[in-house]
Amino acid sequence: MVPRYSRPRMTAIWSPVNRYRIWFEIEALACEALARRGEIPEEAAKIIRTKGDEAMAAFSDADVARIDEIEAETRHDVIAFLTWLAEKVGPESRFVHMGMTSSDVLDTCLAVQLTQATDLLLEDMDILLAALKKRAYEHKQTVTIGRSHGIHAEPMSFGQKLAGHYAEFARNRRRLEVAREEIAVCAISGAVGTYAHIAPEVEEYVAERLGLKAESVSTQVIPRDRHAAFFCALGVIASGIERLATEVRHLQRSEVREAEEFFHAGQKGSSAMPHKRNPVLSENLTGLARLIRSYVTPALENVALWHERDISHSSVERNICPDGTITLDFALARLSGMMEKLVVYPDQMIANVESLGGVVHSGEVLLVLARAGISREDAYRIVQRAAMATWTKLGTPEGRTFRENLEADPEVAQRVEKAVLDDALDPARHLRAVDQIFTRVFG
Amino acid sequence: MVPRYSRPRMTAIWSPVNRYRIWFEIEALACEALARRGEIPEEAAKIIRTKGDEAMAAFSDADVARIDEIEAETRHDVIAFLTWLAEKVGPESRFVHMGMTSSDVLDTCLAVQLTQATDLLLEDMDILLAALKKRAYEHKQTVTIGRSHGIHAEPMSFGQKLAGHYAEFARNRRRLEVAREEIAVCAISGAVGTYAHIAPEVEEYVAERLGLKAESVSTQVIPRDRHAAFFCALGVIASGIERLATEVRHLQRSEVREAEEFFHAGQKGSSAMPHKRNPVLSENLTGLARLIRSYVTPALENVALWHERDISHSSVERNICPDGTITLDFALARLSGMMEKLVVYPDQMIANVESLGGVVHSGEVLLVLARAGISREDAYRIVQRAAMATWTKLGTPEGRTFRENLEADPEVAQRVEKAVLDDALDPARHLRAVDQIFTRVFG
Amino acid sequence: MVPRYSRPRMTAIWSPVNRYRIWFEIEALACEALARRGEIPEEAAKIIRTKGDEAMAAFSDADVARIDEIEAETRHDVIAFLTWLAEKVGPESRFVHMGMTSSDVLDTCLAVQLTQATDLLLEDMDILLAALKKRAYEHKQTVTIGRSHGIHAEPMSFGQKLAGHYAEFARNRRRLEVAREEIAVCAISGAVGTYAHIAPEVEEYVAERLGLKAESVSTQVIPRDRHAAFFCALGVIASGIERLATEVRHLQRSEVREAEEFFHAGQKGSSAMPHKRNPVLSENLTGLARLIRSYVTPALENVALWHERDISHSSVERNICPDGTITLDFALARLSGMMEKLVVYPDQMIANVESLGGVVHSGEVLLVLARAGISREDAYRIVQRAAMATWTKLGTPEGRTFRENLEADPEVAQRVEKAVLDDALDPARHLRAVDQIFTRVFG
Amino acid sequence: MVPRYSRPRMTAIWSPVNRYRIWFEIEALACEALARRGEIPEEAAKIIRTKGDEAMAAFSDADVARIDEIEAETRHDVIAFLTWLAEKVGPESRFVHMGMTSSDVLDTCLAVQLTQATDLLLEDMDILLAALKKRAYEHKQTVTIGRSHGIHAEPMSFGQKLAGHYAEFARNRRRLEVAREEIAVCAISGAVGTYAHIAPEVEEYVAERLGLKAESVSTQVIPRDRHAAFFCALGVIASGIERLATEVRHLQRSEVREAEEFFHAGQKGSSAMPHKRNPVLSENLTGLARLIRSYVTPALENVALWHERDISHSSVERNICPDGTITLDFALARLSGMMEKLVVYPDQMIANVESLGGVVHSGEVLLVLARAGISREDAYRIVQRAAMATWTKLGTPEGRTFRENLEADPEVAQRVEKAVLDDALDPARHLRAVDQIFTRVFG
Repeated sequence: MVPRYSRPRMTAIWSPVNRYRIWFEIEALACEALARRGEIPEEAAKIIRTKGDEAMAAFSDADVARIDEIEAETRHDVIAFLTWLAEKVGPESRFVHMGMTSSDVLDTCLAVQLTQATDLLLEDMDILLAALKKRAYEHKQTVTIGRSHGIHAEPMSFGQKLAGHYAEFARNRRRLEVAREEIAVCAISGAVGTYAHIAPEVEEYVAERLGLKAESVSTQVIPRDRHAAFFCALGVIASGIERLATEVRHLQRSEVREAEEFFHAGQKGSSAMPHKRNPVLSENLTGLARLIRSYVTPALENVALWHERDISHSSVERNICPDGTITLDFALARLSGMMEKLVVYPDQMIANVESLGGVVHSGEVLLVLARAGISREDAYRIVQRAAMATWTKLGTPEGRTFRENLEADPEVAQRVEKAVLDDALDPARHLRAVDQIFTRVFG
Repeated sequence: MVPRYSRPRMTAIWSPVNRYRIWFEIEALACEALARRGEIPEEAAKIIRTKGDEAMAAFSDADVARIDEIEAETRHDVIAFLTWLAEKVGPESRFVHMGMTSSDVLDTCLAVQLTQATDLLLEDMDILLAALKKRAYEHKQTVTIGRSHGIHAEPMSFGQKLAGHYAEFARNRRRLEVAREEIAVCAISGAVGTYAHIAPEVEEYVAERLGLKAESVSTQVIPRDRHAAFFCALGVIASGIERLATEVRHLQRSEVREAEEFFHAGQKGSSAMPHKRNPVLSENLTGLARLIRSYVTPALENVALWHERDISHSSVERNICPDGTITLDFALARLSGMMEKLVVYPDQMIANVESLGGVVHSGEVLLVLARAGISREDAYRIVQRAAMATWTKLGTPEGRTFRENLEADPEVAQRVEKAVLDDALDPARHLRAVDQIFTRVFG
Repeated sequence: MVPRYSRPRMTAIWSPVNRYRIWFEIEALACEALARRGEIPEEAAKIIRTKGDEAMAAFSDADVARIDEIEAETRHDVIAFLTWLAEKVGPESRFVHMGMTSSDVLDTCLAVQLTQATDLLLEDMDILLAALKKRAYEHKQTVTIGRSHGIHAEPMSFGQKLAGHYAEFARNRRRLEVAREEIAVCAISGAVGTYAHIAPEVEEYVAERLGLKAESVSTQVIPRDRHAAFFCALGVIASGIERLATEVRHLQRSEVREAEEFFHAGQKGSSAMPHKRNPVLSENLTGLARLIRSYVTPALENVALWHERDISHSSVERNICPDGTITLDFALARLSGMMEKLVVYPDQMIANVESLGGVVHSGEVLLVLARAGISREDAYRIVQRAAMATWTKLGTPEGRTFRENLEADPEVAQRVEKAVLDDALDPARHLRAVDQIFTRVFG
Repeated sequence: MVPRYSRPRMTAIWSPVNRYRIWFEIEALACEALARRGEIPEEAAKIIRTKGDEAMAAFSDADVARIDEIEAETRHDVIAFLTWLAEKVGPESRFVHMGMTSSDVLDTCLAVQLTQATDLLLEDMDILLAALKKRAYEHKQTVTIGRSHGIHAEPMSFGQKLAGHYAEFARNRRRLEVAREEIAVCAISGAVGTYAHIAPEVEEYVAERLGLKAESVSTQVIPRDRHAAFFCALGVIASGIERLATEVRHLQRSEVREAEEFFHAGQKGSSAMPHKRNPVLSENLTGLARLIRSYVTPALENVALWHERDISHSSVERNICPDGTITLDFALARLSGMMEKLVVYPDQMIANVESLGGVVHSGEVLLVLARAGISREDAYRIVQRAAMATWTKLGTPEGRTFRENLEADPEVAQRVEKAVLDDALDPARHLRAVDQIFTRVFG
């Protein structure tokens, strides 16, 4: 993660202070549970909570430094934190972390951080979905050319394009919700997950307070298939970002110019090279998508830890957990802003639809001729003749449109009424299902 | 996919005949829907259905050859099939495929094949889950050593280990169900998804008959985020296979020998080198997991098709759809068989638990001393003394067990009753939560 | 690998018969070496060679079936082959494979197959390079627009574009040569690579005859970093294929139409929808590139085998070795054909260069004004004025070109001679270094 | 990249100050070249060099802040730097960057940074190779068991194991040298690589002074196949790190204990749980290897930029260039230290060799019996009998070693001399080629 591609709210989740706050919360809740079970004094749990809350409220860089100092000595991050906590809490600190293992704290903390992060991502998603929906409705009746293979196929509603991306991101939102459930689990189960030194009820108590579920069976750690599934969801979302970004990049090409990323008035180079408005946001999003996708494979490789755990996953997660969520948060926000402000050129869209002289309507004309009782072979021959006549002289002085060529064809004139032909050549007919589609997508 | 790693039922799903049957079914259902809407004659739809069903029932290699022959000429697989179908159906064939696009057939067919494949995978999963459950209950009370970092940590139930893998595969089963929903969609929407030449109701009719949902908004194709999510699920499952395979490979090491893959009586080399029973199944599964995981990235790269579609995803899917499902089917079946027949050596497990002289109990002894009122520092010093005495003479004639060293320590003798010490040193205490864990996992 | 994307010469390398021929060659050479060392009778080696050669020359499907039959019983492929060979060679077969391990045969055979495959790929490369060079020279003076971000930047030679791809594939050819060296190694070193039962000199003898180098130190296997490096080279080449394919896809877009894949006269749909010439070859190549790249990660994961080897890499290699080389062979051949026959439209290229009214020359005009002594700020203001005047009225009746707007600007008229302005606005000036570039690239 | 896994020398390469120094150097060298060609005044070039050198020598955080401030306004990093430089250089700054494009500076700078980084990595490699060589020679005669499939196979020299890893890293070093050549290229060729505004000779001058080669043909950027190949090399090296780390993790398992990572005296938990020395360094290296490998795919995806460049690769490279080199530098250093200090237990190695009663020698005994004229079938039966007798009673009071069982076998006693049997059962015979191997590896 580089600062250039991060936003403060998400970055804060991965800060030391947030981590220590969560660690303390886990320890304090475990003490409460132990006290309720009579395994440690009620009074001790209260003091730990009170003094700990105070310490966390007053937490400053000096505390981070102090913990780092202890860690440099003990080479153990959780012990360093507990030692610092003992300095703040006093003798009752001996009841802290009883029967627990470092991983109980670390893995549950990661679960909390990932759920916090996912909640921000879900907010990002909602903003993006709102932007897409707004633009989709705005351009529900805007005719544009649909393209397969980069080649003009048939006209369609530009709003439908956006509705398609909306539908994809709505699916992505659901995937993210499922991913959140995957990782919203708590494990306080000891060295190899047997609860030998601490009862499952403590885990259940802590889990409930933290809004997590207790892991049904853990080893020393929460199984990493959960985290792998989480990163897979991020990878799928990133690919959806790339798809929309690729669409915008195409629309902004010099030859297409159907839409443009909003361009800051003062942005350098805008006026001496007025054509040089580069789709840098969508290109950037394309790159960020590659990054986010790249976290999937190491997350999958993290699953097969040896026996009850090894620590190989740790260095991977120290990178991909912050980087994955921070980068996706940034990308979603950038994409939302880009789509909200996307400059759309409906006139250019129409111009492009018409640029091939109307041959994009050949498919519908074929059907019309067939319905008029002309055999498939003859219909094909007629349409082919008109289309080739249009195509080969496109842009030349003698050029005639597909309509003109059809109307000049006696076989057509005899068999097809003008109104029927008009309808077949009307781009609007390609929008006739757009209401139904919008109802399906937006309800 | 290589024949060595495939099973007939899954391979059949990807055979030409299955594909052509599904294609015909889609076309026939679309004709029925069009007939109901009065867009083609009822009689025509019936003839298409009847003659087509006959042709499909009699379908042979000769038909495949005939279709291939037509395709060699037309360079278009769907047209080749429709031409062949016309030869079988007669003049009513002119009503087949009306208003449809090749992708309508191809993508919907792929959805059917993937759901058929997933149904087999779900069956595989159930067999695997049953095997794991059976072996977990069988070894619920079998004591083994839990290991972190490959180092002995604390004893645990071998059944709990298996329960952990069961729980992971139960999650994987749910992921597979979700993945099935992802790809169980039908699209019959035309060249760019506008329904310009065919009504959405036809799509809905076909979808319902095929047990699919109609895609809310398609382009020319069903959006590829669905397929990407599908392959992600396969990748997560593959990683779970690798985790269990890795466990078995470790257990079968010459120095560990706690379990072994079942070894065929006649398997070569078994008796002149009786120790050389290699965990070849689990090693093979490790490799297959790598393969299955490798399909995730290209599936993710397939999402960002250009505009309403390009065809770049096609060659990828021609490979990874059969290979992914065939390989996973084979791997799950191999894993089930391996786990069902896994030879477990409980005596060797106990021997390994005891092999370090009992120092694996130091954690619990520390807690016992603390509960006996000894300060944390003193408790640590006492345990350290006994553990080091045990460890440094391990395997030597003067060697004494951790228990012996503790009992010989006056500080312990004074403060800790024998029964308490017994309990702390009893591997069985690490199984005390196993009932609760099994209830969580198996209900 | 699917038949659709494979060519016979490469497929043959991965056929059973080729594998068995190589196996026999390795065994026969090892016998010769052992005979020279006096470890087996000279006569035996001769008989093995003679009878084996005969058997291999007469090798038929019946032999494959016989070997399969034996393997079904022994569950061991090399033993099955040796048993078959013994049936052909007679009693002297007892001297075959003496002191050797299956991996000696298997890994050395794989090395031979991969070098054979690479030799074909190098031929493919040469054909591709020849095609690119030919087209580059053909279009050395063809002016086209250079684009950054998909936006017109400055004119350039279309031949230079192709020269850039040539240079990339020339680098790729060198990478492939290096990759060939990586895997062209022989190992005949026994169960854990100690030569305990066979002398290193045997390995050296066999290696030399097979055109391989002896592995300096093997375990039971040739270390897999070599194969990983090989597949990395394939992945880089695949990405180069994708880059060129992406260029063609862009050039063929309906709005750009600067080039088109050659379109078969009889190709379906070509004339009723004359515009619908889809860049299906380059799209297909894009997908194939994804496939080839996907083999990189499992190849990298294969490196960390346990101790002196485990067998996890085997199932991976059974797939990616044939699939990787067959797919790349097919892709390179398809790309060569596509580039050889690419239809180029220089007029459309010029039309596109001019389509923005000449503002693509603003960069050079800025430099011209600066050289004429105008301050950077003033120059910028002047160019900006002319460019904006051009841009905002582009395509309207009042539209004037950038040249017209500049010539109408008194500040320009006073300071810049017409000839200088002509030169600045001449697309040809962007070709002035093309000779130097071609010399660098083609020598 | 997280600070925890980075070292200062490498991090400094990716600092703003290093980047700005290189930018200045490129600009200053380009000015010199232009002055030599008479395109800008000699005096101007000198002033730029002198004042710029002063400014860079005095470069402080305040300068970084100033440049950031300008960039916030202009949204362009190179322009921000040039503006800052102009503030330092004065009016002659108007000759800076003449005819150049931002990418000329950025891409050439990246080349310099990557070569600097690679030089550090090559140093790391040399230290690692020295450590491996030293330990290999130290343990050239140390007998250990070779393992295939995690199962004891035959004895071997522990030094040979290390020599194998040495050989792999020697190959990796060469790959890194090749990778360095790949990216050590300079491009100063303008907006689309045509040298329209700056002569190729300027590029050649700058390249030579920077120790780079001029790119034969660039677009706006240096083609990204070079960077992809660079990251592939890093991925292969990372996999080699994982292989060695995996070996150590296995050797340190509680049941194997043949080697251990050096354990700090004060490292927490070392004495109350003396067995709990976890191979955390090698596990960490395993995770870091996953990270480094994960950069390969996005680097490959960066190759296919659109036309003469898009900017999608930029965000990827801002991450993977620093992260890849910093993480690999850290990993190589960690691995070197780990191997230098690895604690090896030769006695335990011997104990493990003997732990299976000698059946690991069955392969050699088979050969001995064959050489003694016993038929293959009989030899197999005899060895099988002795091996099974040994194996089935292993560890029981009646247990006898393989040697004892063989010596008690009359068929053996009659046919095989004791000395021959001794030799066959002597682990040392597996070291007889170790000199040759070392000569091959170390020269």
